[in-house]
Amino acid sequence: MRTRPIFALAISLLLAAGAAAAPVTPASVLAEAPAAAWIAPAPDDLLVMDLAGGKRVVIALAPDFAPVHAANIKALARAHWYDGLWIERVQDNYVVQWGDPSEKKPLPAGVVADPPAEYERAAAGLALTPHPYRDTFADTVGFAAGWPVAEQGAQAWLTHCYGMVGVGRGNAPSTGSGAELYAIIGHAPRALDRNIALVGRVLTGFESMTALPRGSEAMGFYKSVAERLPIVQARLASELPEAERPRVRILDTASATFAAWVKVRANRQDDFYVRPAGAVDLCSVMPPVKEGD
Amino acid sequence: MRTRPIFALAISLLLAAGAAAAPVTPASVLAEAPAAAWIAPAPDDLLVMDLAGGKRVVIALAPDFAPVHAANIKALARAHWYDGLWIERVQDNYVVQWGDPSEKKPLPAGVVADPPAEYERAAAGLALTPHPYRDTFADTVGFAAGWPVAEQGAQAWLTHCYGMVGVGRGNAPSTGSGAELYAIIGHAPRALDRNIALVGRVLTGFESMTALPRGSEAMGFYKSVAERLPIVQARLASELPEAERPRVRILDTASATFAAWVKVRANRQDDFYVRPAGAVDLCSVMPPVKEGD
Repeated sequence: MRTRPIFALAISLLLAAGAAAAPVTPASVLAEAPAAAWIAPAPDDLLVMDLAGGKRVVIALAPDFAPVHAANIKALARAHWYDGLWIERVQDNYVVQWGDPSEKKPLPAGVVADPPAEYERAAAGLALTPHPYRDTFADTVGFAAGWPVAEQGAQAWLTHCYGMVGVGRGNAPSTGSGAELYAIIGHAPRALDRNIALVGRVLTGFESMTALPRGSEAMGFYKSVAERLPIVQARLASELPEAERPRVRILDTASATFAAWVKVRANRQDDFYVRPAGAVDLCSVMPPVKEGD
Repeated sequence: MRTRPIFALAISLLLAAGAAAAPVTPASVLAEAPAAAWIAPAPDDLLVMDLAGGKRVVIALAPDFAPVHAANIKALARAHWYDGLWIERVQDNYVVQWGDPSEKKPLPAGVVADPPAEYERAAAGLALTPHPYRDTFADTVGFAAGWPVAEQGAQAWLTHCYGMVGVGRGNAPSTGSGAELYAIIGHAPRALDRNIALVGRVLTGFESMTALPRGSEAMGFYKSVAERLPIVQARLASELPEAERPRVRILDTASATFAAWVKVRANRQDDFYVRPAGAVDLCSVMPPVKEGD
């Protein structure tokens, strides 16, 4: 909420002061990260969606948490099944949803119409970096290989943070085929955790979804087909020519840089802050994403 | 994430079953609220902003938490000072900001250019309804007269939940005059609590702000004046003719209905849910708002 003119003035004063040491900030921590702390997702785990109007959204998939659902989405992408479908629902402070709202488009071979309920998994086998501050919903939260995770007892699950992507479904015991996907565009609706399969996270281009007009029908569905934003194509990055693949990396959540970044996010030293919070919640420290080489 | 076709099917089956008792849901709790549980804010505490394109945003002010800042905003509104200014900044998953980005428009008489730092207040005198689930940032949180509040020791402060409105400022010790205001459009950035003056909450029409294109400059400022959305006028409801005042009410956070609604939000019984969370965080239960008579 720093305004530009006053911000510019503050910078000038700082430069004039000369000797003043710059405070450690989230940005300065990231600027000093070693190259090895940035991890490129496997091209086969990246879903690249091109929307009408030349907008591109890049989504990382999470096969370690929802393997059958993730495999379904990959099979749908490889069959070019999403091409020509739409973003059909935008509900303020909740979700954007895309796919086939009719649920009548036949699924290609190899797609499991009703996968197992991959809403949680064994905590064993996850290399969790614990988050150092308490959570409202679970006794332990943290990050594993870039993913926000909650644990209770022997079970672990992905959490509904901003930008997380899940598989739309009907009432239980339906689990959703992947024919409809959603992403979180508001305050984290953590009560959905363990009730639906999370399968990924939007890494770049999310503004093309979050800034869409909200739908006027119940639950934010668009009233008319004309309001829907078409999906031109959805491909796995591994299917794209090398030159067209997104250059995107995620900060290694097991790195010293990530730990330092979380700490400074909880204890802001920037000139703007007068009282560091001393804490930060899980969904406020989603791992930074970097574009380019 | 329930999809319409399957949702419709579930309803049909429910109707066919006949005897099945409908589960208690957040909506059913609100539907049964007595009229007295809905409180209309005082017209002098409602800021009614009309944006270009016929969109109206209604904001409740919080003079009990930031009296000088709230008085400034009322004085600016009464002077018609915001008229013709703009929404100038939209930063994804953070804030929308409006007012005078040049900071050169002279303030009218009676506006305190640099108010005291009303970032917290005495907890004494607040009738807090404690929130029953733990918070990451404070030992006690809850709601007081419809406002989300955190308390630590003898101090209390408003929290940066979705839709909360604050006063833009430069670096400390600036506190902001009210010439620039912001609202939270993403996951609650609670680290801002106690670092800036919160003065209100958007009650209705927020979609007119949250769905705006994100700005391409640093911090989400729009690059050109043409991208800014003009504010046609901003008035206190008390200044508007009776027929033009917004009909809006907020659920009484001291009511039994609110307590029941929070409880069911933490323990969803709807057919869709397979595992109630057993908890819910403060910013996920912002008091419901009702429009109309």
